[in-house]
Order: sequence, then structure tokens, then C-alpha cells
Amino acid sequence: MTNVAIVGANGYSGEELCAILARHPRVRLAAVTSRQHAGKSVVDILPRLAGRPSVSGLSFSESSVDNLLGSGVEFIFLALPHGLAKEFAAPLVEAGKRIIDLSADFRLRDAKIYQEFYGEEHGAAHLLAGAVYGLPELHRAAIAGAGLVASAGCYPTSILLPLVPLLKAGLLQPSTIIASSASGVSGAGRKADTSLLYAECNESLRAYGLPKHRHLSEIEQELSLAAAATVAITFVPHLAPMNRGIHSTIFVNPAEGKKLADIEACWQAAYAREPFVRLTKSLPDVKNVNGTNFCDIAVREDARTGRLVILSVVDNLVKGAAGQAVQNFNLMAGLPETEALL
Amino acid sequence: MTNVAIVGANGYSGEELCAILARHPRVRLAAVTSRQHAGKSVVDILPRLAGRPSVSGLSFSESSVDNLLGSGVEFIFLALPHGLAKEFAAPLVEAGKRIIDLSADFRLRDAKIYQEFYGEEHGAAHLLAGAVYGLPELHRAAIAGAGLVASAGCYPTSILLPLVPLLKAGLLQPSTIIASSASGVSGAGRKADTSLLYAECNESLRAYGLPKHRHLSEIEQELSLAAAATVAITFVPHLAPMNRGIHSTIFVNPAEGKKLADIEACWQAAYAREPFVRLTKSLPDVKNVNGTNFCDIAVREDARTGRLVILSVVDNLVKGAAGQAVQNFNLMAGLPETEALL
Amino acid sequence: MTNVAIVGANGYSGEELCAILARHPRVRLAAVTSRQHAGKSVVDILPRLAGRPSVSGLSFSESSVDNLLGSGVEFIFLALPHGLAKEFAAPLVEAGKRIIDLSADFRLRDAKIYQEFYGEEHGAAHLLAGAVYGLPELHRAAIAGAGLVASAGCYPTSILLPLVPLLKAGLLQPSTIIASSASGVSGAGRKADTSLLYAECNESLRAYGLPKHRHLSEIEQELSLAAAATVAITFVPHLAPMNRGIHSTIFVNPAEGKKLADIEACWQAAYAREPFVRLTKSLPDVKNVNGTNFCDIAVREDARTGRLVILSVVDNLVKGAAGQAVQNFNLMAGLPETEALL
Amino acid sequence: MTNVAIVGANGYSGEELCAILARHPRVRLAAVTSRQHAGKSVVDILPRLAGRPSVSGLSFSESSVDNLLGSGVEFIFLALPHGLAKEFAAPLVEAGKRIIDLSADFRLRDAKIYQEFYGEEHGAAHLLAGAVYGLPELHRAAIAGAGLVASAGCYPTSILLPLVPLLKAGLLQPSTIIASSASGVSGAGRKADTSLLYAECNESLRAYGLPKHRHLSEIEQELSLAAAATVAITFVPHLAPMNRGIHSTIFVNPAEGKKLADIEACWQAAYAREPFVRLTKSLPDVKNVNGTNFCDIAVREDARTGRLVILSVVDNLVKGAAGQAVQNFNLMAGLPETEALL
Repeated sequence: MTNVAIVGANGYSGEELCAILARHPRVRLAAVTSRQHAGKSVVDILPRLAGRPSVSGLSFSESSVDNLLGSGVEFIFLALPHGLAKEFAAPLVEAGKRIIDLSADFRLRDAKIYQEFYGEEHGAAHLLAGAVYGLPELHRAAIAGAGLVASAGCYPTSILLPLVPLLKAGLLQPSTIIASSASGVSGAGRKADTSLLYAECNESLRAYGLPKHRHLSEIEQELSLAAAATVAITFVPHLAPMNRGIHSTIFVNPAEGKKLADIEACWQAAYAREPFVRLTKSLPDVKNVNGTNFCDIAVREDARTGRLVILSVVDNLVKGAAGQAVQNFNLMAGLPETEALL
Repeated sequence: MTNVAIVGANGYSGEELCAILARHPRVRLAAVTSRQHAGKSVVDILPRLAGRPSVSGLSFSESSVDNLLGSGVEFIFLALPHGLAKEFAAPLVEAGKRIIDLSADFRLRDAKIYQEFYGEEHGAAHLLAGAVYGLPELHRAAIAGAGLVASAGCYPTSILLPLVPLLKAGLLQPSTIIASSASGVSGAGRKADTSLLYAECNESLRAYGLPKHRHLSEIEQELSLAAAATVAITFVPHLAPMNRGIHSTIFVNPAEGKKLADIEACWQAAYAREPFVRLTKSLPDVKNVNGTNFCDIAVREDARTGRLVILSVVDNLVKGAAGQAVQNFNLMAGLPETEALL
Repeated sequence: MTNVAIVGANGYSGEELCAILARHPRVRLAAVTSRQHAGKSVVDILPRLAGRPSVSGLSFSESSVDNLLGSGVEFIFLALPHGLAKEFAAPLVEAGKRIIDLSADFRLRDAKIYQEFYGEEHGAAHLLAGAVYGLPELHRAAIAGAGLVASAGCYPTSILLPLVPLLKAGLLQPSTIIASSASGVSGAGRKADTSLLYAECNESLRAYGLPKHRHLSEIEQELSLAAAATVAITFVPHLAPMNRGIHSTIFVNPAEGKKLADIEACWQAAYAREPFVRLTKSLPDVKNVNGTNFCDIAVREDARTGRLVILSVVDNLVKGAAGQAVQNFNLMAGLPETEALL
Repeated sequence: MTNVAIVGANGYSGEELCAILARHPRVRLAAVTSRQHAGKSVVDILPRLAGRPSVSGLSFSESSVDNLLGSGVEFIFLALPHGLAKEFAAPLVEAGKRIIDLSADFRLRDAKIYQEFYGEEHGAAHLLAGAVYGLPELHRAAIAGAGLVASAGCYPTSILLPLVPLLKAGLLQPSTIIASSASGVSGAGRKADTSLLYAECNESLRAYGLPKHRHLSEIEQELSLAAAATVAITFVPHLAPMNRGIHSTIFVNPAEGKKLADIEACWQAAYAREPFVRLTKSLPDVKNVNGTNFCDIAVREDARTGRLVILSVVDNLVKGAAGQAVQNFNLMAGLPETEALL
């Protein structure tokens, strides 16, 4: 049994992480912290988790670095808002803990881009070089040996999984990439904001965060790595009236002479054996991945314009957050990658 | 044209009130106030209202009594939280303004019951005797002449309209009344409360406010008046995943010897000519009343137990709030009662 | 009072049309037909419409041309599936009736394109030359005098209103247009299809109809007219978990040297006085137009890629169907264009 | 590994059953049948199940008794509509197969009551005496040894779990029981019925099946057994706009002299060690049980009327159908009762 801690367990990602780890046969939840709820029983605050033996006796502890260092855990999941994660990560990494960070704080290699997109100095930039971008399908080997894994975000996962192998294989014209994505409302977090009220989001559909959503920075970083050239894309996120799910519709021109069959063959080569990527015949639907760690991907050709339309879906709280974090953890801990996730 | 003001126009009821009054052919919206948004264009805050000539030039003014007195309006709608409405009403009533209050502040005749249910002294109890309970189907004549109308609440409207004529006619055993109601989330108001977030209310259904929801006080007051005896009922409200609509399921035993046909005949007599009460053959559904000022009512007999099951629906923001307020206003102003509401 | 008939009134568009015409002060609903429900009371089938004096006594009549010719109406709304509308329109037009057709049957000028997109011969192609595409903001004068108006569809309205003036003014590169749209489920009609069940559409988001949705044909026809050149676009519709609303996100490159300010100025010139087009500062949201005849439009510049992102929303059943049909009717009948619609 | 078959796997309960059994460590899905989809790949029809090793190679086989007898399975789950299940069960039981039936066909001990509530002769009434009502918390020992288990329904589970121990202990006045329940739309099954379309159920709430819903028969049978006297209750089901979840609000008078504390103590004694019953402090919410096999229960006292208000929730597809069936199966097969369910 591996002892783990979750810091910031009362947000949506943290709650989902508790739920997944509670059924993980090789994990003991040694500490679950919450600034807001320290001292209270976990199941009083998160009643969905009641009745799971591994959670039912737990109380939230104070979210302090000292607590975590004293808890004797080897792995620590940070489910904190960006900005806050950095403060926790630095002393924990130095003390030899292995960190899976669900925030955006260590996803960017370049602290200047962090500052550009997040509007503040990074402050723990010395850790960026050692951090690994936590998308297992792309960086499996590096994740396994990492001390600090920056688990990939929800929109990025839905966009990178289909595009990265195609860019690596030179099958696309990178400058033509446009991604139009929609997210369920849990993606905005459990925060008291009137724009996220039920009656503001139900029977509603709207774009937001234009033209420079924060996730664009990590998407372009990984696309550029794959293309071995700087890639800039247009990315438009939307808020859709559902609890969970990311749907991405990606428009792109194939590289000169490349065809639909090349795309499909490239994906087959990359993903036929991946446990969490499903290449679907029918058009992806978030309802097929919600509650799971799968990413479903399909492509259609628009013969009239020569464009490809790529469609992909993930559950923003699972493959886009907590599930991905556990997948990363499984790799880091040398456990079967699918443990607790299938 | 009658000049009116709306105080607290940025909540859900206030916004609906703006929308209804904007299409009222005999009304000029002379002032629309909001503490939070004073000075801002109404349509910048409530973009749904843009494009209506009568609203498009308006800005929110400061919610002050002096402003209102200086605005030269004759009628003032108060769309404020309970507690706040009282403070505004007193000086305005004294200055001769005619008030339609959408809050609960003047619905109870007895200040002690107000204190019991609302947890604070009333403070303007001298106005209670002159206030009229604003449910036109029950108190039409008194409303027409009133200076202060306490527009009836959403749950109460759905429960009182079916029960009051039956109690008056002695057709029910009052001690057997149980009401199980469900409300759309807009009923909880536009407030930054995590329990009202989309992801907390969607795919959710839960009771709340047990066992003594505030609306119980006005329901029992009016039922007792109708029965000419003290009536105590069991009332359980639920929050349902929809924007709008109240559905009430009422269980009651008929009085000795009374039958389904008596119930139906009594309703026919009371409501056949009411413009906003529809006695339906099929079971009521909130979707049939949402966006309208109708209350739909039906009854079924449970022959196996001898109980009646009465079902009723209203739109909590229209017949349960803003529409009812305008219906009251139309009566007070001597206008056709259905103006702007059909 | 103008006598009108609605053919096929029990679908979603037909029901909405009844609701709008029921509050139209210059219209008498002389006949409402339904093959399926002939002989039944309208409000028994569509209980939402009960209590409106102009509907409450009506029964559905048989959907036959003879019936309609005998009914003495001057204007006939066809709210039928495509394919069926053609059969009704021909004899009615010949008999001098003025037709507002909500289907796609007369929207295309070219019968071959109809056959390509709808998979069957047109059969009444001789009427196409005389039919007017019923988008009042683009073809107001022609609509006013037309005998047969093909009321514009929901997706097309949301895409054409923002793009047509820009293409006419040469502000866009037509070959770069991509439209990613999402529709509420009522857009698929009231048909017994398991893929449209609540539990298949809730917590679901999916693209469909790729790569050649039928509406593409009318979109490209009107865009080509505006650009005075053949325009082919990529169009991806999605089904979103909401009753109503179309949201379109349009990606396009400005013409050489054209800027955001040119776009905005062009729209101001085209739409500042249009009663049903709102140029919004904030990003459009379907909740702001649902239940109304408005189309909200905004634009953002993606400076990093040089693309424009245009956003627009309509209610698919109002500005995308029944409201637009009434707007067309008002023009044809010489009535104020906004009657019953504001 | 135990070989099992699922008959009728393409409905909602059948699909959920596949999902649960696919993660069951002691089960091999040997046959999955569907009349409609025989010959097709399971994951083509139910794409949500793709990527699970135990399902991915499966095709639907023909739903025939011969097929099932030839398949060599020991346990057969019937996820068929009532009426159809009987036809399958009889020859399978005779052949010694052990059956878990998710339909209502074998839940009633008395074939006459079946005929009264289901409107047809039973036809396999000789099996009723040997069938066990499949609610493990009430009939665990009998289920373990049974050849034919009639897995308890969704509404009944939510009503019986709180009430049965209280009736057994004489804590309630049985004649006062009223249950007002609401179900998510998946409870109505995956059938092409316009009343179940998204746009008919969203922003909708309505009672149905009054006054004698079919589930009433099994509820009263089990309540009567518990009370050792005939119990008749009033039961009103509602359809609520959500995919999953049953919420029951139960009104009842305590027996003379019995208090809230007696209720709570009785439940503690009955359920403190039950793995799937949670006695909650806060009011139950379907979102806390959706996707799980839990039943959450709470009670409040309405001191003003002397009534108790009991609240309970289950996921209609898990504890109300597929999860319960697997819990029954685990008992029958001598496996840990919670296998694949926690």
C-alpha cells in the first residue's frame, strides 16, 4: 500500500480524486487537506463519498506544508487553484516528496509565458525544468521517473491527444489549426460566482475567455514541441449546460498530399494499444466518456473545402483532471497504469 | 401612461418584472433601481432586456427613498429580499405612493408570526393592518383599493389557489393537508451561494427548509382564513433541476361524504371565469405554465385510501412573483387585469 | 383582422407559431391543421396554449388543400417537414394564397442543389423563381411583395446575419469561413427517435450531420450572393443539452488590410436600426435571446493568428422559425414588422 | 470466474449491468443478447462500454432460450420489459439456470395482483412461490439460496428500505403512509416515445401514473409483510428533468407514543452495518447516490402536525436496477456482496 495525500480536496477535482483513490487497491489515503474545512469529517462535507471504507473515518486536516511533511506520505496530489500550488510544491519537492499537481503551475516550461498568461510572476521557476507535462500518452517514460508531474489540463488533453501524433508525423498544416471547445460547468470550479449559478448556465450556451484563454499556453507549447516549430492556434472555449465533459471540434488543413487515411493510420499506430484512447467510428459524445478516463477521437473530411474536422471528448474531471492525475501516479509508483481507472 | 418604479431590479423577479412592464402598453418605466449597479445601463447588466424601446435608454438609479419620492412615480414595485422591503415601504406608503411588494414582509397579518418565521422583529408592524395579501383570485376587491399590496409568494400561490375555495366550501378535512412542492432554482434568487451552482443543482433533487419553511406562515394564514379555523399543514419544498416552475402535489382527505365531483364543481364555480387559472384534464406540467401567468390545477382520487391528490403548477417568476405583481398593479391602477400578461 | 391558417401546427415550430399569433392583435387564427390530431381540441394536444382566447375554442382540422382553400384565409403558414411543404404550396400559390413556408422546400434557387442536399427531386421547381428567401434583414422589400416566402432556417439565420453585410462590403476572405454551431434539441423536431430522448441528450454534447448538413446549401447560396462569388464554407452543427437556442462561432480571416473596427462599423451601418439585431458588447449567450426574436452578434479579434471570431445567437424556434415567419408575415401584410414580436 | 449472460442488454438497465459486470473481477460475460441488435458488436451499439477488455470483443447474440441454454452460463440476468421476462424465465429455471430478473414479473407473490396491476394474466404463476423478492437488505438469506430472484424495483427500493424496519418494529401508523417520489427520465426506459423527448422533459416536472402506478403493488406487498397486516398507501410518482435518481418523500404518523429517536434507533440497528444504506445527517440528494449502489435515508419531525417526513434517494439504474441485481447475484454466487459495487 502506498500512502498518499490530497491537498485541496474539497473542489470538484479534489472530490473526484478522493472518489478514485478510495477504490484504488494499492493506495491508502493518509491525509486529505482543506483550508476551509480543516477538522471536519470528509463525508460531512462531501457526502457523496460516505460509505467507502477508506474515506469514512477521515477528517480534513489543515493544508500546511509541515502537516504534509509530517504525514509520512510519499506521493502528494495538489488539487489547488493555480498560483497556490506553486507555494506548496517547492518545499515538498525539496523534501523529496513526489508531487502530482493538477493545477497549471508547472505545465509551462517558460516562466515568461506563465507570467504572460497568468498575470503574475511564477516565483518557483527553478522547478519548471524538472517538471514533466503529465499527459501519459505523450510523456509516459518521463512521468514514470519524475518528482514533479504537472498533470495536463482538460481542454489541452482533448486537443493534444488527437493533434500531437499528427503534427509529429507532418500530416497537418499547423498554421490552420482552430479549436472550438465546450466544457461542462464543473470545469469552472466550485466557487461562489453568480455567473455559474444554475439559472445562469441552464438553457445557456456562451463563449468565454476570448481571445486568449490560459490553457492556450500549454496547448501551444505541446503542439510546438510536436511540430518542432512554433505553432499558434485559435482556441475558443464555451460553457455548455452540463455538469461534466469537454467536447473539442478542431478544424485543420492536412499537409499537402495527405489524406484522411493517413490521419487514421497515424492514430492507429499511436493509439491502438493505449488503454484510454478510443478511436471511434461514430461521432464522439461526452456522455460516452463522462465518469471515465477515456478520450474518444474521430475525424471527418470536409471534401468541399479540403479541411479536416477532428472531434474529441473527455470528462473534464477524470481524463481532464483527477483520472489523469491517478494515471500519472500509477506510472510514477510503478503500478499498472489502469489501476482504479477502468 | 402610468409612471412606475422598480426597486431592486437586478434579481430574477426584478428582471422578469422589467421584461413584463417593458411590454405593458399603459406603463412607463420611470425608474429602475439597484444598489449594486447604480449608474450602469440596465441592458449592460441585464442583456436579455436590450432592444426593448422602453428599457434600452434606462440606467439603474440608486435605491434610495429620496430618489423614489423625487421620481414622481405613482406606483412602486419592491423586488427586494425580505427584511429590506420593510425599510423602503414605510416612508413610501406615508408619502402616498402605492406599493406592490414582492417580498414576504407584508404578507402576514401578525407581526409575531413574522418574527417566529423570519427570526427578526418586524419593525414596520403598523403597516400590516393596511396591507392586502396580493393574490387577486382571492382578494381582488381589496387589492384594487389598497395602498400596499403584499404580492403572494410562489409556493403559496400554487397551494392556495387549489385549496382556498375547497376549504371555504367545507369540502376538505383541513388537518390532513400535506403539500410536497418542488421549485426551479431561480426561486432561490441570484445570489453567490455554492449550493446553487449549476454543478450542485443539475442531476440533483433534494428537499430543503424542513420542517418549517418561511412560506408556511403565509400559507397557513390564508388557509386558516378560508377554513375559518386554525389550519396547520405539513409542507416540504424541494429544489429541482430546472430554471423555473413550481409543482405542488397536495394530499388531503375530503370532508365526510364529499366526493371528487364536489371538488371539481367547486373549482368550476370559483375559476371558470378566472383568466389565469386553468383547470386541466391532463396532469399539470410546469413546462405548460413557464413563461406565463397561469396556474394549472387538477385533481385525482386515490380510491384505495380515500385521499385526494391535487396537483398544481405555476411559474415561480411569473404567477409566483413578477406576473402576479403586475396583475395586482393592473387591479390597483384600474387597468384590464390581463394587460401585458396574456 | 387578417385571417390566417397554420398547417402542421403540432410540431415545435407550429406550436410556437400558434403562441405568437395568439397574441397578435391583427390576426385571427382561422384554421389550424394537423394530420395526426384532426378533430381534436388544440389545447388538449398543446396544453401550453390553453387560456388564450384566440386559441381556446379551436380544433385541429384536416391538413388538406381543399380545406385550406375553403377556409377563406389570405395567408397560410406551412410548418411541415421539408418535402411535404412542396405538395401543399403549389396548389395554394396557384389559388392566390400568400404562403409563409417554414420548411426548406423553397429556400434554394436551384432545384439541382435541392436534390443534392435533400436527396429527392424537387417536384415544384417552377415555384422556386418566385419564392423569396425569408430573412427580412436581407430581403425586406422582396418579402413585402412576395406570394411565397421561404422563411430562413435557424442555423442559416445565425450565420447569415453576421456574415452577409461583411461579405457585401468585401471585408472578409470568403474561403476562410468556418462555422461551428450548437443547437438546442427542439431543433430536431418533435419526433419519436430514441437519439432525442432526454437521457440521450442530457449530459451529452455531440456533433452531427457531418460534413454536409442540409442547411449548408442555403447558407452558401446566400453567402455567395453577398460575396458575388461562389462561397464554400465548413459548417459543423452540434446538439447541446438545452431546449432552445442556436449558438454559432464563426472563424474567418479579414480581407487584406481590414480590421476589427471595419467589421464593427459595417455592422453598425447595417443593423443599428434593425429591431431584431443586437450588436452586443459582451459575448452572446443563448439565454439572452431564448423566447425572443432577437439575434445577438459580437466579434473578437484573435491578434495572435489574425483571425476574427464572430459569435451569434438566436432562438431556433423564434428568430430561427416561428418568429421569423411572423416577421415575414407582418411585412407581407403591411403591418408593423415588430407586431407580436417585441 | 463465473459465466453469466445478460438478456436484453441494450436498455438502460442492461447497459448499466454490462458496465458493472465488466468491472467485476469474478465474472465473465459469456453472452449478451438483444433482439434488436443481434449480430452487432456491443460497443458499436453502446459506445460508452468500449475499451473495457471484457466487453470489447462481444457481439449481441439472439435473445433465444436455446441460445442461453447452449451458452453454458450458470447465471442469467433478465433485463427485459415486464411480460417478456416471464417467457424467458420459465424454461431457464426448469433447466436449472439461476435467474436474476430485473423486471416486475416475479416480484408479486399473488398472480391475481399481477393481473390487476399489469393488466394481463401472469402465465408463469407456478414460479411465483419459488421466487424471492430481491432486496438484499430485507431478504438476504433467501436470496442466497434462490433459483429465481426478482430484483426489487427503483421506487420500491427507495420506499421499502426506510419503512420496512419501522413497520416491523411497530413504530408507524401504517394507514397514514404517503409517498411522493420523483424519478429521472432513464427510469422510463430507452423507448421511442415523444413524451420522453429531451424538449418534453427538460424544464418540465409532472406527476404521472396516478392513482395506481404498477410499482404500488410490490411496495404494498412488502409493507404488508413487514406490518403483518394489509397496508395501503398513497403513492405519487413524478418525472423530473434529470437522467438518473429517485427521490422519495414519505409522510407518516408515528405510532402512539413513538418519537423521532425511536425511528433513528431502529434504523441504526437495522442498517449500521449494511454496506449500501447510509443514514445521513443532511437531507438526501440524488446527486450523492447517482452512479452508486447506495440508498441514503434521513428523517425529520414536523412537530407542528406530529408527522414524520422521511427522505430517501437511490440511483434508479444502480440500487434501483443493475446494481441491486449484481448485489443479488453476489449473494447467490457466494461472492462478497459488495464486489464491483463499491
